[in-house]
Amino acid sequence: MIVNNQNYRTIWMENSSVFMINQHLLPHRFEIHQSKNYIETANAIKTMIVRGAPAIGATGAFGIAQAALEFKGNNPEDFKNHIENASKTLKSTRPTANDLFYAIDFVRNKMLKNFNVDDAKKDAVKFANEYADWNAELCRQIGEHGNKLIKNNQNILTHCNAGALACVDFGTALSPIRIAHYNKKNIFVYVDETRPRNQGASLTAWELAQEKISHAIIADNAAGHFMKNKKIDFAIVGADRIAMNGDVANKIGTYTKAVLAKENEIPFYVAAPLSTFDINAKTGDDIPIEERHGDEVLYISGIDEDKKIKKIRIAPEESPAKNPAFDVTPAKYITGIITEKGIIKPANEEIEKFVKNR
Amino acid sequence: MIVNNQNYRTIWMENSSVFMINQHLLPHRFEIHQSKNYIETANAIKTMIVRGAPAIGATGAFGIAQAALEFKGNNPEDFKNHIENASKTLKSTRPTANDLFYAIDFVRNKMLKNFNVDDAKKDAVKFANEYADWNAELCRQIGEHGNKLIKNNQNILTHCNAGALACVDFGTALSPIRIAHYNKKNIFVYVDETRPRNQGASLTAWELAQEKISHAIIADNAAGHFMKNKKIDFAIVGADRIAMNGDVANKIGTYTKAVLAKENEIPFYVAAPLSTFDINAKTGDDIPIEERHGDEVLYISGIDEDKKIKKIRIAPEESPAKNPAFDVTPAKYITGIITEKGIIKPANEEIEKFVKNR
Repeated sequence: MIVNNQNYRTIWMENSSVFMINQHLLPHRFEIHQSKNYIETANAIKTMIVRGAPAIGATGAFGIAQAALEFKGNNPEDFKNHIENASKTLKSTRPTANDLFYAIDFVRNKMLKNFNVDDAKKDAVKFANEYADWNAELCRQIGEHGNKLIKNNQNILTHCNAGALACVDFGTALSPIRIAHYNKKNIFVYVDETRPRNQGASLTAWELAQEKISHAIIADNAAGHFMKNKKIDFAIVGADRIAMNGDVANKIGTYTKAVLAKENEIPFYVAAPLSTFDINAKTGDDIPIEERHGDEVLYISGIDEDKKIKKIRIAPEESPAKNPAFDVTPAKYITGIITEKGIIKPANEEIEKFVKNR
Repeated sequence: MIVNNQNYRTIWMENSSVFMINQHLLPHRFEIHQSKNYIETANAIKTMIVRGAPAIGATGAFGIAQAALEFKGNNPEDFKNHIENASKTLKSTRPTANDLFYAIDFVRNKMLKNFNVDDAKKDAVKFANEYADWNAELCRQIGEHGNKLIKNNQNILTHCNAGALACVDFGTALSPIRIAHYNKKNIFVYVDETRPRNQGASLTAWELAQEKISHAIIADNAAGHFMKNKKIDFAIVGADRIAMNGDVANKIGTYTKAVLAKENEIPFYVAAPLSTFDINAKTGDDIPIEERHGDEVLYISGIDEDKKIKKIRIAPEESPAKNPAFDVTPAKYITGIITEKGIIKPANEEIEKFVKNR
């Protein structure tokens, strides 16, 4: 992705440190966060310095590589136990993102094929980097497939941030938008603010501004109005987990936009790598929904007139909040799922065919 | 309404001043704003120190009474011209609220029946107060009718603030909730935050907290999730203007909640006095939608850790916003309209019958 006219990735590893764009400070300040060990990396996931399913996945992969490097000694059994513990810690940071489990298992299983601890450590770093490179490449492929669906002069709605910042690069939902823009298509993006954490207003808008793609931020409440008034031609979102019947768990509000899109006959696409499918989830009912602290609704961050980042309370002292972080959009509202291997109609057989070959 | 265990109205007149609860400072600070002349009153409407269709109506009525009192001289023609100018100024403050036009015309037409300027001035104050009393009473009646629809142990969703603060007292959408609570029904209110101006999180939550009615604030994005998961039994909102076919203009996001309610088979009611019907609007297409400044989306107010009210920017410097303040909900999504004279099915003949007798 382009930041200040330079190429960046969201996360990368150097020696035993994991570096990531600090998403707490965006869009107000661009800073790189350094995690020196896997516990710090787990905390970075938990506190959402890094967020978005594929980015969390790659961070988990680097975290397990860090855990391997941190191990002192050469007893393979102790090493294995240490990796199992680290794996549990890293997996417990966020309950909804399937990519996290997938990425950690990917690196762990590959490195544990070694009998020798030193070889396993080397492999851990190698496969974590491989995972990240692979993730960037498949996001690019999602962009190429999705770009074919976007026509010149279209107005596109997106929800939350399924951008490069949510991945290693390119993004999922934003990748087709980026590729369409690189291909000189004239597009305009309606960016859902995405309360309570405002990933749309802060991160998606920031990415689009950096890439000079025309856009406007709208209140989440306004998307329906624009759809009804034929201002939106196409809707695209990411996914945190997809069940085998095509039900999609994604940022809270996705279900709402999908219902509105169907009501207004607007195509509604989900862009996600095949790793997002959870073969253990038959339907959306099998996906646990993370309930986060009510303070995310009651407080909000931004910059004051002195450009200082401030957190303010926007509600009465006495009022509590409820804060489900995700919702499940039933498959019937989804036009198609854009993956690295092409577009899937959200029907069981189709999904099984694609997932078998992922 | 109860504030700090005392009875209050949202707006009232004393001598030639109009007093109102300053809704810019809520929920953080409770202060009374004084407008000393009709220009200040018009500004108070425009800058939304007072907001909500019926409250704006009553404020307009008091404003026109102030304009009458401000007139020097006793030439009836000059007086009439002065009143026409004041009426135009007051009506131009907000374009969507029908009550504003209705209330101003109510006072103007009654007082202009006098040939004598002094009598007209006295009548202006008398009829403005009558309008306010009448508004409080019909909100109470809306509450009584609406209360019959609310069952014990129900979870109720409301959007924006259609509370006492949006009226003179009781509220429209909140009046049935208040009356149900006074009748000892066990109810729980899901309060839509209502971005971009957060009237739900700041005003509705504050009113409910003052009256000790159980509630939680939710992000606007979460209402669909709670509906789908059968956590919401009943939805109720106010209205800024209603067309003669039952299409309802109300705070942006109302259309979205109505579509979601229909999709999930949840009754969706609109509570509004009969004055909200615009006999010149055949359908929702005839209602102009106010487009407000994008800064309302890009900035947000609250209190910092020192309890100081702060305005912060939540978006990148480079990103613009689009900000439609209202949307139109087609009649087909509305279960019924709760008025002071009973509940109307949103069909032309029904509406005409009620409006004829208002």
